[in-house]
Amino acid sequence: MEQFNPVDHPHRRYNPLTGQWILVSPHRAKRPWQGAQETPSQETLPAHDPDCFLCPGNTRVTGDKNPQYTGTFVFTNDFAALMTDTPDAPASGDPLMRCESARGTSRVICFSPDHSKTLPQLSLPALEEVVKTWQEQTADLGKTYPWVQVFENKGAAMGCSNPHPHGQVWANSFLPNEVAREDVLQREYFAQHGTPMLADYAQRELKDGSRTVVETEHWLAVVPYWAAWPFETLLLPKEHVLRITSLSAEQSSDLALALKKLTSRYDNLFQCSFPYSMGWHGAPFNGEQNDHWQLHAHFYPPLLRSATVRKFMVGYEMLAETQRDLTAEQAAERLRAVSDVHFRQPGV
Amino acid sequence: MEQFNPVDHPHRRYNPLTGQWILVSPHRAKRPWQGAQETPSQETLPAHDPDCFLCPGNTRVTGDKNPQYTGTFVFTNDFAALMTDTPDAPASGDPLMRCESARGTSRVICFSPDHSKTLPQLSLPALEEVVKTWQEQTADLGKTYPWVQVFENKGAAMGCSNPHPHGQVWANSFLPNEVAREDVLQREYFAQHGTPMLADYAQRELKDGSRTVVETEHWLAVVPYWAAWPFETLLLPKEHVLRITSLSAEQSSDLALALKKLTSRYDNLFQCSFPYSMGWHGAPFNGEQNDHWQLHAHFYPPLLRSATVRKFMVGYEMLAETQRDLTAEQAAERLRAVSDVHFRQPGV
Ligand SMILES: O=P(O)(O)O[C@H]1O[C@H](CO)[C@@H](O)[C@H](O)[C@H]1O
Ligand SMILES: O=P(O)(O)O[C@H]1O[C@H](CO)[C@@H](O)[C@H](O)[C@H]1O
Repeated sequence: MEQFNPVDHPHRRYNPLTGQWILVSPHRAKRPWQGAQETPSQETLPAHDPDCFLCPGNTRVTGDKNPQYTGTFVFTNDFAALMTDTPDAPASGDPLMRCESARGTSRVICFSPDHSKTLPQLSLPALEEVVKTWQEQTADLGKTYPWVQVFENKGAAMGCSNPHPHGQVWANSFLPNEVAREDVLQREYFAQHGTPMLADYAQRELKDGSRTVVETEHWLAVVPYWAAWPFETLLLPKEHVLRITSLSAEQSSDLALALKKLTSRYDNLFQCSFPYSMGWHGAPFNGEQNDHWQLHAHFYPPLLRSATVRKFMVGYEMLAETQRDLTAEQAAERLRAVSDVHFRQPGV
Repeated sequence: MEQFNPVDHPHRRYNPLTGQWILVSPHRAKRPWQGAQETPSQETLPAHDPDCFLCPGNTRVTGDKNPQYTGTFVFTNDFAALMTDTPDAPASGDPLMRCESARGTSRVICFSPDHSKTLPQLSLPALEEVVKTWQEQTADLGKTYPWVQVFENKGAAMGCSNPHPHGQVWANSFLPNEVAREDVLQREYFAQHGTPMLADYAQRELKDGSRTVVETEHWLAVVPYWAAWPFETLLLPKEHVLRITSLSAEQSSDLALALKKLTSRYDNLFQCSFPYSMGWHGAPFNGEQNDHWQLHAHFYPPLLRSATVRKFMVGYEMLAETQRDLTAEQAAERLRAVSDVHFRQPGV
């Protein structure tokens, strides 16, 4: 009988952080593409857009006026998904209709006053300020809430209607699903192995190299072995770090560099502004022993074959299991093959 | 202190089938919409399209020619995500890089020779033939595989590039994630309560009525208490039924009626061909005692506010927890408020 070969044969890989399997169908990348194949818009945006509700000096839909900010700018979302003062829900013992009250807040983080820029196009000092803002927001909201979710939705494909460079931070009175799962599985691994799962994983990937996309002095970005999205990456500090608020000054400024290189490679892959959702996971502020946690960022980009052909997580994926058409190693190889200097900014 | 009210206050609801929570932000439905608001295309398609690779008599990309079929037509996917003969992967004890071989097959099911029709526009006898085809495919593949996933991706928003009415069936040598979770949680509920979870749930919803969308003699469609997608529904037989292959003749033909009513309500909501992914879950063919299972179909439609404004499950949803802007009861009320006769076929 033929020997199993992960580059030719369908297989499943296990995500030890979430306990989910991913179906990998590497032979499928060979099929001809029958869907749309468009050229990406090369449109350049103005540095200030009078109709943008995030640009400095403009008035938002609520009537509030943005200051003439010059670095980052944070404000509470005008239509937050959570409120700070929701009353408790009465406890119900009902196993089929369980409900609990949820408190929190949600803020918008403008990364730059310049409407035309995205993360890879910001200077290193500007990126350092973004990192600092993430840290300040996490520290501030972590005083009140056990969970602080920092994230960015980038591009129309990821439901973002405003190209002004910005992200969000949502604080929660509860541990959300994804985090609760990562918490349990990292805790189990730590109990069994005595080392944090993702610290071990970073060491393994540093030695292996086949899934590495970016390596800087303190940071490593890999297409994780269990990647779901075609060009998904996991960004990890090389040392054991619990939270974004615990990074040293060196780790913080090196993070700016790692972000610039990673997001530049993304944009270079299909010569477009690469859409994604990204966000940070670190130890919750729940007063528990959290040594099993390792700080990390997930990047979930939807593009598959070109600037306009995306992977749809539908049908089989929603009802059964995530499926991908190329291996993590193939994806990492493609991201390594492009430059880490942005195609629109060769001088920087 | 103010009293908790699920129509005004953010809360979380628990999905007992998957063990996941959903964040409900009902006050958010009040926010003005700043994104795109387009009119849906009212374009009507030809009954036969010479360029469609699913129409009768046409030649597919592989050179195979479709027969002049008059009812449903099933063929093996020309670029299947799974293969029948994948060799076993060597067992690895590696907790960080677990991999296993996957076998299976994937077939395409054309629902009708008429390129211009969708499920709600088919006659009841034609819908009965679709149900029969789902049953035959499930029975056939269930002889070899423990899991048979029948599903339909409908509409460009759900990654479907061909409007010809069709679905798919994928067979797996393993229990996929979603199914494995439902299996465990239904089993636990059965052990604790002595009755199948979803049979109990159907009885509860029949008495309550606030989440009911369609009720026929043998079937019930509700926006489940824990719905994730704005207008998600769960379609359940009223009696305890393990699999689609175990339905009686009456239950099968009544299913055609329930499908027609449900998908007509969907199309009527925004007066468009309503995109969704739908699929069937029933007891696996794994030779185990499966009395805890109850047959059901999930409908996951992405639209939120109009024919062109969808819910994006991005950012917070991917990194933390699914979030919705209207309650399940509000969604059910809107689906009940429209007719169950299709807006383009008032005569049928
Ligand atoms: O099989 P198709 O229609 O080519 O592809 C579609 O359905 C599949 C199964 O849900 C998904 O994996 C693909 O991402 C989607 O585009
Ligand atoms: O908050 P925004 O940008 O209006 O909305 C976007 O991000 C949110 C958080 O990921 C999602 O819940 C929305 O579906 C998405 O459209």
